Amino acid sequence: MSAEIICVGTELLLGDILNSNSQFIAQQLAKLGIPHYYQTVVGDNPERLKQVIEIATSRAEILIFTGGLGPTPDDLTCETIADFFGVPLVERADIIEDITNKFAQRDRVMSPSNRKQALIPQGAEVLPNPTGTAPGIIWQPRPGLTIFTFPGVPSEMHRMWTDTAVPFLKSQGWGEEIIYSRSLKFWGIGESVLAEKVSAYFNLPNPTVAPYAGKGEVRLRISAKASNSQAAAALISPVEQQLREIAGLDYYGTDNETLASVVGGLLRSSGGTLSVAESCTGGGLGQLLTEIPGSSDYFWGGVIAYDNSVKVRLLAVNSEDLENFGAVSAKVAEQMAVGVKNSLNTKWGLSITGIAGPTGGTDTKPVGLVYIGLAGPEDQVINYECRFGSMRNRAFIQYLSASTALDKLRRSLISKYNESTS
Amino acid sequence: MSAEIICVGTELLLGDILNSNSQFIAQQLAKLGIPHYYQTVVGDNPERLKQVIEIATSRAEILIFTGGLGPTPDDLTCETIADFFGVPLVERADIIEDITNKFAQRDRVMSPSNRKQALIPQGAEVLPNPTGTAPGIIWQPRPGLTIFTFPGVPSEMHRMWTDTAVPFLKSQGWGEEIIYSRSLKFWGIGESVLAEKVSAYFNLPNPTVAPYAGKGEVRLRISAKASNSQAAAALISPVEQQLREIAGLDYYGTDNETLASVVGGLLRSSGGTLSVAESCTGGGLGQLLTEIPGSSDYFWGGVIAYDNSVKVRLLAVNSEDLENFGAVSAKVAEQMAVGVKNSLNTKWGLSITGIAGPTGGTDTKPVGLVYIGLAGPEDQVINYECRFGSMRNRAFIQYLSASTALDKLRRSLISKYNESTS
Repeated sequence: MSAEIICVGTELLLGDILNSNSQFIAQQLAKLGIPHYYQTVVGDNPERLKQVIEIATSRAEILIFTGGLGPTPDDLTCETIADFFGVPLVERADIIEDITNKFAQRDRVMSPSNRKQALIPQGAEVLPNPTGTAPGIIWQPRPGLTIFTFPGVPSEMHRMWTDTAVPFLKSQGWGEEIIYSRSLKFWGIGESVLAEKVSAYFNLPNPTVAPYAGKGEVRLRISAKASNSQAAAALISPVEQQLREIAGLDYYGTDNETLASVVGGLLRSSGGTLSVAESCTGGGLGQLLTEIPGSSDYFWGGVIAYDNSVKVRLLAVNSEDLENFGAVSAKVAEQMAVGVKNSLNTKWGLSITGIAGPTGGTDTKPVGLVYIGLAGPEDQVINYECRFGSMRNRAFIQYLSASTALDKLRRSLISKYNESTS
Repeated sequence: MSAEIICVGTELLLGDILNSNSQFIAQQLAKLGIPHYYQTVVGDNPERLKQVIEIATSRAEILIFTGGLGPTPDDLTCETIADFFGVPLVERADIIEDITNKFAQRDRVMSPSNRKQALIPQGAEVLPNPTGTAPGIIWQPRPGLTIFTFPGVPSEMHRMWTDTAVPFLKSQGWGEEIIYSRSLKFWGIGESVLAEKVSAYFNLPNPTVAPYAGKGEVRLRISAKASNSQAAAALISPVEQQLREIAGLDYYGTDNETLASVVGGLLRSSGGTLSVAESCTGGGLGQLLTEIPGSSDYFWGGVIAYDNSVKVRLLAVNSEDLENFGAVSAKVAEQMAVGVKNSLNTKWGLSITGIAGPTGGTDTKPVGLVYIGLAGPEDQVINYECRFGSMRNRAFIQYLSASTALDKLRRSLISKYNESTS
């Protein structure tokens, strides 16, 4: 028993719109525990749509259509489905009345073309559309096959799904088993290396574990099938604990946690305050930190020292060192961190200086070379050299630099106040 | 002759990610004039993937796969395709070398599991991946059938498509009639207002003009059908000129231009230098400015004055004014702009102070209230009050604040050096 999603619309084939309906329905099916193996997009073309229905009915028992329910001549989904099963369309007076009322509410008169939206296959149930004019259907054209149709407008489709489709599917016994997932996030370890460390878990039946490569990070997705979210969480928790222990400090957070929110939590719980000194990231580090509501509790600000004169004037970087070692050097990174910490009078100072490219790289200092400086409460200062690779583009190198700086601070905070990661 | 898009990945069936790859490829196929009637999504499951290949080969001559090229065990696309056509995989030494070099560049060692990415079907061409480790293939397993594979990571896939797939498809005779588009971008005007101003253009046959609402901005997309991009550009240019004249200063740039890149161009051409003072944006303004390569020519840096003590200490904001008018006030915004301009010794100083929320709003100073300060070369200083609305989320209010500050500077630069916008 499985469901299949069929999105109808030439605008999808032209790439005019992003297919967010597939994602929404996919998430909803997972929540209800309804298996789902295929998604198809086809244009507003009866012959091709029939071919898609032929294939889908051979492998799924629930077909979910979106799009092609509008009043215009190219909206053919409903009549094509009826035609495929050789069932006539009937005009429903209740739909006509509903559409007429909706136009009246907007001081408009229903145009003749809207009558088309009142035609549904004989024997089908109306799937009401509270917010638009195009209703959908719930139809069992033959035993063991259920068809849903929805308009393509996401807001209308979502409301119809929640109000009518979900209760119907639950009445059919679905949703007694749900799929619940948790994403563990890792920084500073590659997908392949992490995958090898935890490969034993990829064969678990329930919960399942799968790796994903995110933006500069890796994720492990733990998905459990259970009767409710509590039972699913109970299946997930032990596996989560084990994976976190294996990964150690490379694990940084779960689901909606970000490096900035985790660092924020650690600073708040340890009474730490932070200032930043940014060269090649130009404010990107402060931006990540201040995206977090309440970050003013621990983040005081910083200096964007893009030009070397600013490094000297506002961060007391030694101009001879700038001359001798260059702006992109461990020494300058450390002086920037100490400088901003002293100037803003915070417990921690975090700095970034590097070459984001695309130009400015040399053989000894290629694009992607970045130094991070970290000055801590006991006046200790450390630096980290990172090579993000000259094939990365500027914006991504800046993002990797800011995120890695947060990660270094995270690791220092954890080991200093030796909080366990698990 | 038509193409078919097949996206492989269980994460798509679970609704974890939005299928933006289908949209990108669909747009690209339209540009090249390649017909395309079906898109399919299938999980990381060899049997189901084979079934999808079976169906696709029966109705299309170009199959484009994305996803499932990674190093982990669930990445099965390439071997499943080879298996379907009964062709063995061969390990390509050149790919091994390429992957090894990429790991070396990042100070990492290639893990054994990455060797998997060097296996491609016998007789297939490598489709190079300049920015990632997983290469794709271009393969004709039998006459009249061409297969492309791409990794699922959008940035890698886009680059591979542009660098290799497009030239290959053009060499096969595609792209002789192309659709060429140009996007005009506007800031500080609503979609409906702009649409009314230019509504006459929405009925043009070729080029066509259509409005889109972007992130805090409005765009007009001009699309022309022609035999080549020069001919298309010739159709587009006069319409572009007229639209830009109608919009005046609300038009800020075209296609890849951003507010930051346009401001950068104006500063460079006028010999201006800029520093910023940021409170509620926490570095977001500097980040937008420094995303632009070469921004060090005119952007010197700034102060992230998140905590009031920083406003006083580093920006010489008057603490009595802070007390009397509050940090979110026109007076403090102006003092921040003047303070950073003087401290960093630049021609222009741009400041932002406001309430990004979700908390911190009051009846008189609601969430979304933002003051922008602009100090110019002749020591004049202006402030702008913006109300972005308390229903907007924090990150979006921060983005609107930074972008609007750039837009204010853009308008000042244009009128000061009275450069025309068209």
